[in-house]
Amino acid sequence: MKNTFGQHLAVTLFGESHGPAIGVVLDGLCPGLPVEEEAVAAALALRRPAGDTATARVEPDRFEIVSGVFEGKTTGTPLCLIIPNENTRSGDYQRGPVRPGHADFAAFAKYGGYEDYRGGGHFSGRITAALVAAGGLAASFLAPAGVQAGSHIYRCGPYCDAPFLNPAAELPLVANNPFPLLRRELEEPIKERIRAARAAGDSVGGVVETAVVGLPAGVGEPWFDTVEGLLSHALFSVPAVKGVEFGDGFAAAERMGSEVNDPLRLVNGRPQPITNHNGGVNGGITNGLPVVFRCAVKPTPSIARVQQTVDLLTGQETDLQIGGRHDPAIFHRACAVINAVTILTVYDLLCGRFGTDFLRGGAAWNTV
Amino acid sequence: MKNTFGQHLAVTLFGESHGPAIGVVLDGLCPGLPVEEEAVAAALALRRPAGDTATARVEPDRFEIVSGVFEGKTTGTPLCLIIPNENTRSGDYQRGPVRPGHADFAAFAKYGGYEDYRGGGHFSGRITAALVAAGGLAASFLAPAGVQAGSHIYRCGPYCDAPFLNPAAELPLVANNPFPLLRRELEEPIKERIRAARAAGDSVGGVVETAVVGLPAGVGEPWFDTVEGLLSHALFSVPAVKGVEFGDGFAAAERMGSEVNDPLRLVNGRPQPITNHNGGVNGGITNGLPVVFRCAVKPTPSIARVQQTVDLLTGQETDLQIGGRHDPAIFHRACAVINAVTILTVYDLLCGRFGTDFLRGGAAWNTV
Amino acid sequence: MKNTFGQHLAVTLFGESHGPAIGVVLDGLCPGLPVEEEAVAAALALRRPAGDTATARVEPDRFEIVSGVFEGKTTGTPLCLIIPNENTRSGDYQRGPVRPGHADFAAFAKYGGYEDYRGGGHFSGRITAALVAAGGLAASFLAPAGVQAGSHIYRCGPYCDAPFLNPAAELPLVANNPFPLLRRELEEPIKERIRAARAAGDSVGGVVETAVVGLPAGVGEPWFDTVEGLLSHALFSVPAVKGVEFGDGFAAAERMGSEVNDPLRLVNGRPQPITNHNGGVNGGITNGLPVVFRCAVKPTPSIARVQQTVDLLTGQETDLQIGGRHDPAIFHRACAVINAVTILTVYDLLCGRFGTDFLRGGAAWNTV
Amino acid sequence: MKNTFGQHLAVTLFGESHGPAIGVVLDGLCPGLPVEEEAVAAALALRRPAGDTATARVEPDRFEIVSGVFEGKTTGTPLCLIIPNENTRSGDYQRGPVRPGHADFAAFAKYGGYEDYRGGGHFSGRITAALVAAGGLAASFLAPAGVQAGSHIYRCGPYCDAPFLNPAAELPLVANNPFPLLRRELEEPIKERIRAARAAGDSVGGVVETAVVGLPAGVGEPWFDTVEGLLSHALFSVPAVKGVEFGDGFAAAERMGSEVNDPLRLVNGRPQPITNHNGGVNGGITNGLPVVFRCAVKPTPSIARVQQTVDLLTGQETDLQIGGRHDPAIFHRACAVINAVTILTVYDLLCGRFGTDFLRGGAAWNTV
Repeated sequence: MKNTFGQHLAVTLFGESHGPAIGVVLDGLCPGLPVEEEAVAAALALRRPAGDTATARVEPDRFEIVSGVFEGKTTGTPLCLIIPNENTRSGDYQRGPVRPGHADFAAFAKYGGYEDYRGGGHFSGRITAALVAAGGLAASFLAPAGVQAGSHIYRCGPYCDAPFLNPAAELPLVANNPFPLLRRELEEPIKERIRAARAAGDSVGGVVETAVVGLPAGVGEPWFDTVEGLLSHALFSVPAVKGVEFGDGFAAAERMGSEVNDPLRLVNGRPQPITNHNGGVNGGITNGLPVVFRCAVKPTPSIARVQQTVDLLTGQETDLQIGGRHDPAIFHRACAVINAVTILTVYDLLCGRFGTDFLRGGAAWNTV
Repeated sequence: MKNTFGQHLAVTLFGESHGPAIGVVLDGLCPGLPVEEEAVAAALALRRPAGDTATARVEPDRFEIVSGVFEGKTTGTPLCLIIPNENTRSGDYQRGPVRPGHADFAAFAKYGGYEDYRGGGHFSGRITAALVAAGGLAASFLAPAGVQAGSHIYRCGPYCDAPFLNPAAELPLVANNPFPLLRRELEEPIKERIRAARAAGDSVGGVVETAVVGLPAGVGEPWFDTVEGLLSHALFSVPAVKGVEFGDGFAAAERMGSEVNDPLRLVNGRPQPITNHNGGVNGGITNGLPVVFRCAVKPTPSIARVQQTVDLLTGQETDLQIGGRHDPAIFHRACAVINAVTILTVYDLLCGRFGTDFLRGGAAWNTV
Repeated sequence: MKNTFGQHLAVTLFGESHGPAIGVVLDGLCPGLPVEEEAVAAALALRRPAGDTATARVEPDRFEIVSGVFEGKTTGTPLCLIIPNENTRSGDYQRGPVRPGHADFAAFAKYGGYEDYRGGGHFSGRITAALVAAGGLAASFLAPAGVQAGSHIYRCGPYCDAPFLNPAAELPLVANNPFPLLRRELEEPIKERIRAARAAGDSVGGVVETAVVGLPAGVGEPWFDTVEGLLSHALFSVPAVKGVEFGDGFAAAERMGSEVNDPLRLVNGRPQPITNHNGGVNGGITNGLPVVFRCAVKPTPSIARVQQTVDLLTGQETDLQIGGRHDPAIFHRACAVINAVTILTVYDLLCGRFGTDFLRGGAAWNTV
Repeated sequence: MKNTFGQHLAVTLFGESHGPAIGVVLDGLCPGLPVEEEAVAAALALRRPAGDTATARVEPDRFEIVSGVFEGKTTGTPLCLIIPNENTRSGDYQRGPVRPGHADFAAFAKYGGYEDYRGGGHFSGRITAALVAAGGLAASFLAPAGVQAGSHIYRCGPYCDAPFLNPAAELPLVANNPFPLLRRELEEPIKERIRAARAAGDSVGGVVETAVVGLPAGVGEPWFDTVEGLLSHALFSVPAVKGVEFGDGFAAAERMGSEVNDPLRLVNGRPQPITNHNGGVNGGITNGLPVVFRCAVKPTPSIARVQQTVDLLTGQETDLQIGGRHDPAIFHRACAVINAVTILTVYDLLCGRFGTDFLRGGAAWNTV
């Protein structure tokens, strides 16, 4: 289905970086949910570049909801949200040398040269603004039911944040922060690493950790629509994400079964795993613990250093030095996008399990 | 769509570990492809447990193709392949204590206790036999077009195999080997590690690396059906897979953009990236290089050690010591399943791009 | 998705008329539903040819459920039901002259000659046995919740049965009857018409009317997954169906708005349309009245008369006289297939609206 | 998937009659197709009400394409087209009495009263403007490949137009006509019938016949994605359509097999049916002849006559006399919508068969 994701809550993205507008259609929302434009604005603000660790292109991200809302509430019919592109400087871009690490060459192969190459076109991180807006809405819909998602910078070079151990308590600590960390003392060293990369005409990558709390046990499918499978399917759309791991993830490869299995005990009289090495998912299905995963975010491919490449116009090898406005790191901004993708997927999962109106009249979906 | 995967080649799985049979329906195959039962048998043989590093339950994996084949060739209508369960010892299993690390508790929450719990039921690794059979067929269909997938054990504890550097040359080295390694000298140490785990009533995990060669540039979608997204969606169905990374993956988090961007040069007169830090995918779309990724496979959850858990029958906390026949490691057997899932996803991607009959009369799909 | 139908309850068909077996996979069933094999057998019995108005090929329709059922109840995982083909006489069939009115030529164009042409292969009415078996199960699952579907012969040549006026009362009158009519006095004249057609080496068509009772108001979507759209999508798969109309259908083209609009009154204190010219659906969504529609079933294309055609083997024009065993009419047998397709679609609709477990613990889905 | 239709070309609709805008997202278009805004404008003009046989609400249907087009050609990424609502008079509408024959009551049951009821909201015929715009584009893309769809008024009350007999020659006769008829002499009598209905505070229905030419044989699937099934699925979304029949359709119920079977002969050396009683489809798959079908369009439900209904605000029975601006007939305007839905479905079918780029470099898809 290409640019649409979700079987029950379908998210359709459209737009190019330097076209008139980008936007999103959300289809499958429960009717009667209060639409708070502030929730959207707040989510967009977290994604917006700011300070000296980000691109100088700042979009005001004015948005308009053109359908699906009536008298301040969702109607249950498709909600289309449009964000005009205002601060475009297309002069910075022209067809020519492929930017290494970018989608330029792959897109050329796919679209035969008809793609809008300006600023990455449909591949631009700009498109994620629409995704973040949609996620902001979904998050505001799920919050009253106790379902929340949040992310923090988990690693950047040598700097490692503390992992989520008790996400219900930790999510508020990283919410609404454009540079979310559990160990605030890492903020300056990491920013310094980013600034140093920029100064060197380079960029840096990082790892983002995400947690979802409030999901009941019993959501997801064994084959193939596992919780991990659906989330990763969506997460790999977040530009620069090159890896996704749940629970112990790759570290499990060095561990013993006795270290990775989560023992169960009765908690408040109900069975529950008491460690979370499996990231809240067994056999593709939630076990009632928080869903915890990490995404690898590669360094921004747009760097100022001279790079070897090929010019698609001339068909010749050439050197490329990228100008324009770019982020020396995007993992911190990726947190907002990862949150959005996560909460939209979670909404879809719950909707599939409990029906289209699962949020009407207060959710009561405990399964065990 | 739950137990179905693939928009163009739909793979539907059915069956329980201790039911009469398991099977798979493949819908969307190009008509006229020669069906070689040996290809299925060979794929199944690689998945089958063998030696002292695997479970003692050995199924003959007799299979029958009951539809979709006529006069030795695919008809283009659904191909159903059935594998009877023959060597079942249900007495080894009964409802009771949740096995930590298994799907037991999540399945109970989802299915309300109606799930077939014997041997993991529909969650059993047994089901992957049907997947491997389907993958064996798909692999035999794609091989003449030059598209191949293969995997090797990349890591187990302290032992690291060499990474794929030139997969076209390396795939034959690991093909048809139930314990695939590029550095054969690691076989004995890794097997020894597995035996030691078994002796200790424990199990070990590992990392599997996979490569796909022969894919043209320009396959995949930017949002949301990226190559990474589709592959990971399917890969997380492989039991015990808890992480998927492409190219540099999580290592990219510690690198600079200048280290991760793949420069392009003219190769045989055509533009091509000359390193593969992005695993053959940019912006969700193939760039013409081999697609390379790694899966984290957790240690088998069935271990002989005493574990803390809860008995779902009595509702009481209890200790559990798992009997029965089990693998002390499954990452090596997972290679066959990962290959199957990979090649089925690749078939689906190619079919979406080039139409249902893309393999008829010889594939000619170069895009750049 | 080709041979799969249903977004929430996915029905996958496989098999050829003269292959080893046909079958169906049902994925998305609520766990815990009692599986009554008699319900399947009864549904199959209604589809089975009988008497002198049908083909002489009679299959015993032995079936086996190989997955998805445990201790007599659905597990919630895919249920695969297989029906071996036992009474095949492939010698009756061979590649050669296209049978006019059949799928032979279209199938040849699609599958390039690789299709299993024996007895129509995957296009054979034989495949509907698997569909009917699945429908029999779904019907037994929905009946306790008050949802039922049934059909009767509405028209054959000059003979018109009474329309459904009060389906809740009329459905029992046509249930479990292989030649269902509200006006029983039409049975003999219609059968006589069928016999006369056979005697003339010809065949006859008819119209089938179907009603679904027990659906709450508010099920379906405005665009594009209307109740009419989903049902017709599935119904046109029933071999020989060439038209579908809801409520007044084509007759509405000759009527005034004042004759077709259904006035509303309070019935038991709740708003309700008091006529049913719209067939229980407005704007694609159920209005709480029975869903009523009619299917046009064309005459069986296999006739004994000499027909002009082309021989695909020789590429020459030729005359064809079809031998073998055939039905001189299928509209009466189509009732069982239409019922199956209808109830499966209804299950899917309800599941999408109320979640996967909507039948657990008694359905309580009233919406107004 | 609710408001999205098409597996290969996905059409997503959004908007309400009296909201800020309506629109459509087209995802899956072949890159490099010339986008002619005149094609859209011309299609919209045919849908726009005109003269005394239509509503007095006339929208200018200004539209903007905000994505998916670059330098006048499709990029292959989602094309979003937005049509602002300009001429809205919401004062004409308020929650209250259910309008009989409309979706009001069904929508209330589905959306719990949160639906935008003004002017029918998301159920309004207004939404079809976006569909028609999308169809106009798709038609312009397919025309150079020889694939065309067109419709005419087939019946209204006692007036019957000639059926399509040679659509390739007849389609130009009915193209670009807001009141398309093969027998132009019927225009005045039918318009007079419409005017008489309006004068009587009533409305009239009709039948529309549609033909698609240029489709190769071999497109479509046997189960369940038949050509008839996919088209009808989409067609029942066209407001007021209550029946769809292919070829002889319901008339086949009164005919003999020998009258309905289409004999084959060699035409230009290739096998071809020489009559078209099956409407160009056998076994769900095109046979190379034009696809011909008819849709029943019920009388407009908005009529001036007093009608019995229930007021949802008061919960009381009441009489209703509908004011505002309405069409006394919509079957003629429905032609543009049916054409749009048809050509979009045809694009989807071709794309599934021949791949996403089937229109690049000239289509060459002959299959037999």
